[in-house]
Amino acid sequence: VSTNRLEAFSDGVLAVAITLLVLNLTVPLVGSSMLAHKLATMWPDYLAYVTSFVTIGIIWINHHAMIGRLREADHSILVVNMLLLMSVVVIPFATNLMATYLKDGGGAAHLTAGIYSGTLLVMSLLFTALNRQILVRKPDLLRVQLPAEARQQIWKRAFAGVVPYVIATALAPISAYLTVAICFAVAAFYATPLASSAGAETASLDAGDDDV
Amino acid sequence: VSTNRLEAFSDGVLAVAITLLVLNLTVPLVGSSMLAHKLATMWPDYLAYVTSFVTIGIIWINHHAMIGRLREADHSILVVNMLLLMSVVVIPFATNLMATYLKDGGGAAHLTAGIYSGTLLVMSLLFTALNRQILVRKPDLLRVQLPAEARQQIWKRAFAGVVPYVIATALAPISAYLTVAICFAVAAFYATPLASSAGAETASLDAGDDDV
Amino acid sequence: VSTNRLEAFSDGVLAVAITLLVLNLTVPLVGSSMLAHKLATMWPDYLAYVTSFVTIGIIWINHHAMIGRLREADHSILVVNMLLLMSVVVIPFATNLMATYLKDGGGAAHLTAGIYSGTLLVMSLLFTALNRQILVRKPDLLRVQLPAEARQQIWKRAFAGVVPYVIATALAPISAYLTVAICFAVAAFYATPLASSAGAETASLDAGDDDV
Amino acid sequence: VSTNRLEAFSDGVLAVAITLLVLNLTVPLVGSSMLAHKLATMWPDYLAYVTSFVTIGIIWINHHAMIGRLREADHSILVVNMLLLMSVVVIPFATNLMATYLKDGGGAAHLTAGIYSGTLLVMSLLFTALNRQILVRKPDLLRVQLPAEARQQIWKRAFAGVVPYVIATALAPISAYLTVAICFAVAAFYATPLASSAGAETASLDAGDDDV
Repeated sequence: VSTNRLEAFSDGVLAVAITLLVLNLTVPLVGSSMLAHKLATMWPDYLAYVTSFVTIGIIWINHHAMIGRLREADHSILVVNMLLLMSVVVIPFATNLMATYLKDGGGAAHLTAGIYSGTLLVMSLLFTALNRQILVRKPDLLRVQLPAEARQQIWKRAFAGVVPYVIATALAPISAYLTVAICFAVAAFYATPLASSAGAETASLDAGDDDV
Repeated sequence: VSTNRLEAFSDGVLAVAITLLVLNLTVPLVGSSMLAHKLATMWPDYLAYVTSFVTIGIIWINHHAMIGRLREADHSILVVNMLLLMSVVVIPFATNLMATYLKDGGGAAHLTAGIYSGTLLVMSLLFTALNRQILVRKPDLLRVQLPAEARQQIWKRAFAGVVPYVIATALAPISAYLTVAICFAVAAFYATPLASSAGAETASLDAGDDDV
Repeated sequence: VSTNRLEAFSDGVLAVAITLLVLNLTVPLVGSSMLAHKLATMWPDYLAYVTSFVTIGIIWINHHAMIGRLREADHSILVVNMLLLMSVVVIPFATNLMATYLKDGGGAAHLTAGIYSGTLLVMSLLFTALNRQILVRKPDLLRVQLPAEARQQIWKRAFAGVVPYVIATALAPISAYLTVAICFAVAAFYATPLASSAGAETASLDAGDDDV
Repeated sequence: VSTNRLEAFSDGVLAVAITLLVLNLTVPLVGSSMLAHKLATMWPDYLAYVTSFVTIGIIWINHHAMIGRLREADHSILVVNMLLLMSVVVIPFATNLMATYLKDGGGAAHLTAGIYSGTLLVMSLLFTALNRQILVRKPDLLRVQLPAEARQQIWKRAFAGVVPYVIATALAPISAYLTVAICFAVAAFYATPLASSAGAETASLDAGDDDV
């Protein structure tokens, strides 16, 4: 029961956060002849919308797999999950900030691209921390007992998701576009069949549940 | 379990997106004597609100029937579902854009009506893609095994929903009002007993589940 | 299963609509010495927030009892439920409109108070229509078969909820304050133990379910 | 069933309210060279975001434990729960108000800090009232019968959560910073292992359920 409500609340927060991204797409108020041009110049908003939507969507898919391994949650898991959600809810703000200044010639583009990928980096670190809490520190709360190596392996694969955001954030002072491109590439990668095979692996671990 | 959470998350996103439509109805700040007139001139906002609300409501009803056929979801279904939700969440923006410029004499009305019906077209294409993924490509994930012809038939009927949006979008350069009228008519049609008979057919397929 | 998801989606829409009411409370930007006075003049906003919050909360409680009687939903019930939700989602807009103009000396106060109670009237009419659809027209979809008199009685009691909103809307041209006061009184009444006894009656009908 | 939907609706409202906090983080529109400085001066917004997010997160965790003890809800519990949610939904407004005026030299900082902690005080009083309604006045609705002393003990521990908000609100005329610091400290405390031990106690009471 406890895990059900943890999922329901997390789903709710993720669903609202992912939908609030649309509020960053504001209707421009210009003369009729200028509208097409104005909408075209808003491309950083669309790029940012797609990147952040897919990123939060991927978080939801992975969150589902992570919590699905859990039989019940204790206080420490609830708190780390809350911190993870707190970082996800910041994403619409960081997205809007980055989209507003991406085309800016000066330092603001580098700064806001860095804040954007930095927000995703913090989110992925908290995701990894929650995974570690579940797989390494509280294995007795798992629905299916897994050997220590299998748990370490899942956790390490999750940790690998942190690396591109470290690189993206480190590159922000050099190129804001490169930083955003890496964030977009990470989102795109996890939505492809390449990531699907990793997902299938997770599914087979979950399927193992049925055998027990 | 997996399908339950897919439904819960999709329901959450659809519920937030449908409710955010009200944010497009902004309170006008005018003198007391001007208010009635000002509220009357806002009729494109009301028309757009009703059209988009019913459209998203219909998406929810059909999404329910579609996912209800599914026993469990794999990675590709989750990703296509995410893309579908991404197009639905854009609807409040496209609605606001269209309502703002519908009465504009110039090209902006044609452009924004086209963007509006184009958004609904993309949404219906992704809906059809998800239906195809479920019914044609992954029939082993269905809760009830259906003969290939029945699956093709459901999928083709779903594809028929794409056609009016193609026409509406194609007519946008000619008449913005006609484009919006078609979008409204599609929403109204699916809310009538005419569409209900198709829904009953789906229900009887679902009811077949109890017999197995 | 169908009823579960109907409830889940309706709960989602009601939860978002009730929470969006807070967006009508905007932070005033004034000098430090003027803030207390400015916040005090915002009392129509607070009154409107409480009235609409309790009203939507009561809708949720009654919606819960109504759908709880249902075994499964057909297309017509889904559509009437969607229209009901469409009227509920308009409440935050109507609330903001009324709160903005309530203290206005001219016709705008009467107009917006009438729109506010008119929105609640439409909502209560759609609520009654949904109740009638469930109790009178589709009794075979009920979880527990009730005698025709009991069904008529529940439906008529629900219809009685429409009357105060008819009176409130009719009085709008005479006194905006009276209109809002009636809407507030209806919300307050349903939150008291007086309405609780009606609720207990409903509960005993539901409890009858356990005996079957 | 009734408790499930009470939880689902409450989860929905809490999830939307906690996510709306991000709308208080607005993107500043300044020249490129000024952005870093401007973002730095927005620290009260970040502090307020973290404090309110963790506070609502803690409300959710405790609400979960409280409703989890309940077998079914009656009308009075639904109404007190609605009033509790009404106070929670005000938190984003009170948070924004406090963050806007915290650095103000004059009386507005004291006033808005007092309104902020006052909102949390009202929320904690309603939380305690709901706990009392469940544990003391309606013990027959509990899932597991608890001895009167155990019920009194849980309720008194919940009441202890009110005290810091009384102090914080009383100190608002003296120091706005101190008031906010106490609110932050309460949130931080409940997120630590110290509060976890109290949580474990609750868990063991819930675990007692399995023995029955």
